[in-house]
Amino acid sequence: MKTLTSLSLHFDQDRLCILDQRKLPHEESWLVCHSPDDMVDFIKTLAVRGAPLIGVAAALALAHFVEKGASDVEIEQAAKKLIASRPTAVNLSYCVSLQWNTFQATKDRQTIIDLAEHFFEEDAQLSEQIAENGAAEIQPGESILTHCNSGGLVTTGIGTALGAIIRAHQQGKNIHVYVDETRPLLQGGRLTTWELVRLDVPHTLCCDNMAAVLMRDKKIQRVIVGADRIAANGDTANKIGTYGIAALAHLHGIPFHIAAPYTTIDWECPQGSCIEIEQRNPEEVKGFGNLQWSPSASAVFNPAFDVTPYPYITSFITDRGVFKEIVAIQPI
Amino acid sequence: MKTLTSLSLHFDQDRLCILDQRKLPHEESWLVCHSPDDMVDFIKTLAVRGAPLIGVAAALALAHFVEKGASDVEIEQAAKKLIASRPTAVNLSYCVSLQWNTFQATKDRQTIIDLAEHFFEEDAQLSEQIAENGAAEIQPGESILTHCNSGGLVTTGIGTALGAIIRAHQQGKNIHVYVDETRPLLQGGRLTTWELVRLDVPHTLCCDNMAAVLMRDKKIQRVIVGADRIAANGDTANKIGTYGIAALAHLHGIPFHIAAPYTTIDWECPQGSCIEIEQRNPEEVKGFGNLQWSPSASAVFNPAFDVTPYPYITSFITDRGVFKEIVAIQPI
Repeated sequence: MKTLTSLSLHFDQDRLCILDQRKLPHEESWLVCHSPDDMVDFIKTLAVRGAPLIGVAAALALAHFVEKGASDVEIEQAAKKLIASRPTAVNLSYCVSLQWNTFQATKDRQTIIDLAEHFFEEDAQLSEQIAENGAAEIQPGESILTHCNSGGLVTTGIGTALGAIIRAHQQGKNIHVYVDETRPLLQGGRLTTWELVRLDVPHTLCCDNMAAVLMRDKKIQRVIVGADRIAANGDTANKIGTYGIAALAHLHGIPFHIAAPYTTIDWECPQGSCIEIEQRNPEEVKGFGNLQWSPSASAVFNPAFDVTPYPYITSFITDRGVFKEIVAIQPI
Repeated sequence: MKTLTSLSLHFDQDRLCILDQRKLPHEESWLVCHSPDDMVDFIKTLAVRGAPLIGVAAALALAHFVEKGASDVEIEQAAKKLIASRPTAVNLSYCVSLQWNTFQATKDRQTIIDLAEHFFEEDAQLSEQIAENGAAEIQPGESILTHCNSGGLVTTGIGTALGAIIRAHQQGKNIHVYVDETRPLLQGGRLTTWELVRLDVPHTLCCDNMAAVLMRDKKIQRVIVGADRIAANGDTANKIGTYGIAALAHLHGIPFHIAAPYTTIDWECPQGSCIEIEQRNPEEVKGFGNLQWSPSASAVFNPAFDVTPYPYITSFITDRGVFKEIVAIQPI
């Protein structure tokens, strides 16, 4: 493969590296991915995360495995394991399935490598287009709420939802970002803040339960978040907490946008109720990292995602334009 | 003063002690209060917390100061400092002002001590009545969401909102409690869980941003929370996050109750917009305890409370009964 570099992925001289997002913002440490099994572990433990990025990262891991001389059986097993590593995000199965199916059709191993390079480069272009389309929705002087992290860390380019916000800032629109900390894994408090500090974008961190009062006090004019899977009817799975924000935005008359590449739309999935929601380790809710603050005897509810029904979504900001309804976007 | 004992307060043989709620659930450590200044520090740092409890605790600290022979000037200064230690909770100023004003009227120092004992005993009775009245609202088999901590730790009895829930459990109503962790200080994740484990009440801990999807999935049939100050029109200040829960409960058609003693009603305050909201240290949002996970350069929004407008409140569960409107309760 050629040399490939983004904020959180790097391939160079036969070495695939990922920025360990668990260590941010205090430490910028890179992990070497020696095998698809390494990548499965990085995805499961959220060292690498974000719907677009894990698709690209898994594709690179499979391509790297091919370059190292894996057998057909090994490639198939690796593809299956990679797809199963996070069930909700659709980009992952989209990328790896396309690699495997194209290889099956062509019997040419090089297609697996070519597709990985293509996904990497396409993802940067897609997020560039999303950022441009999203920034055009943002009015000068607005304060925008975002949840989780959807910036340069989770794409090979500027980002999706956060990319649109960053682009509006770069355009001199004098915007302000409210960042939900996004419990339990604090992707907002750790990663979105890290990106915004890095790019000098004015922002304010808040706990997830503070967004409602910010909306009521008219401190927030717009909400933009990413997506992990968009059903064909527009119902959208995203980081847990998104549904509550969408419902509150609806109640307060605040526009609520989903920003995502077309690869996040799952045309096979008719509606949100068909989306499998990953349940994660209870320990994530009982504390953070090595610090545990809750009694071990308490039961825990810890879904990684929730589904926002399409009526609460003002529009979908995609690489192909901004659409009120997902059905306006045709499958390729 | 006589010997007084509750879950989190203890007065015995000239020694006033408080259970350090910052250390729970992992450590049950008691702090000795040597002076009103100690109590101001305990209140400000949330070693002692909860609207009813800080009223009683401050009254005990003032009474203890009187017993130790403080001068009139010292008593007045201590009363002022105690009242100023947390501006939002009304019980604190209610108790200490009544002590000071009664002393001014009677010139009898013993009234300060008598009132402290009275507040301690009355608070247990008030929460007993609230628990009975609230439990009667709870139907068999219901799952109830609560936010922050309003149990035996914050009253001298069974508690207010959590007291009602605990009482329903004791009545064999087969209830289940969903506990919001309540960022940033995690009173739900640390303290409510600790109380429920202790009393063997079935419960599930969740992050604050998970309540919305629990409501949509009909996993929650009722919300009961406490209060820090209730305005004369019914607008209610409570722990940050309460407003969002009330708005979401309204949207999902779920009953939302405030449970509080009459001492939490501020008849001088016509509406929620007149309630002063305490802003707390940004570091609370950037991490927990000694663990900091957010960049130091990020700005932070950290109000301790928010105000829920009365139309979102199904009813007020008080010691005097359950009322649809606060105006149905007459001032004493």
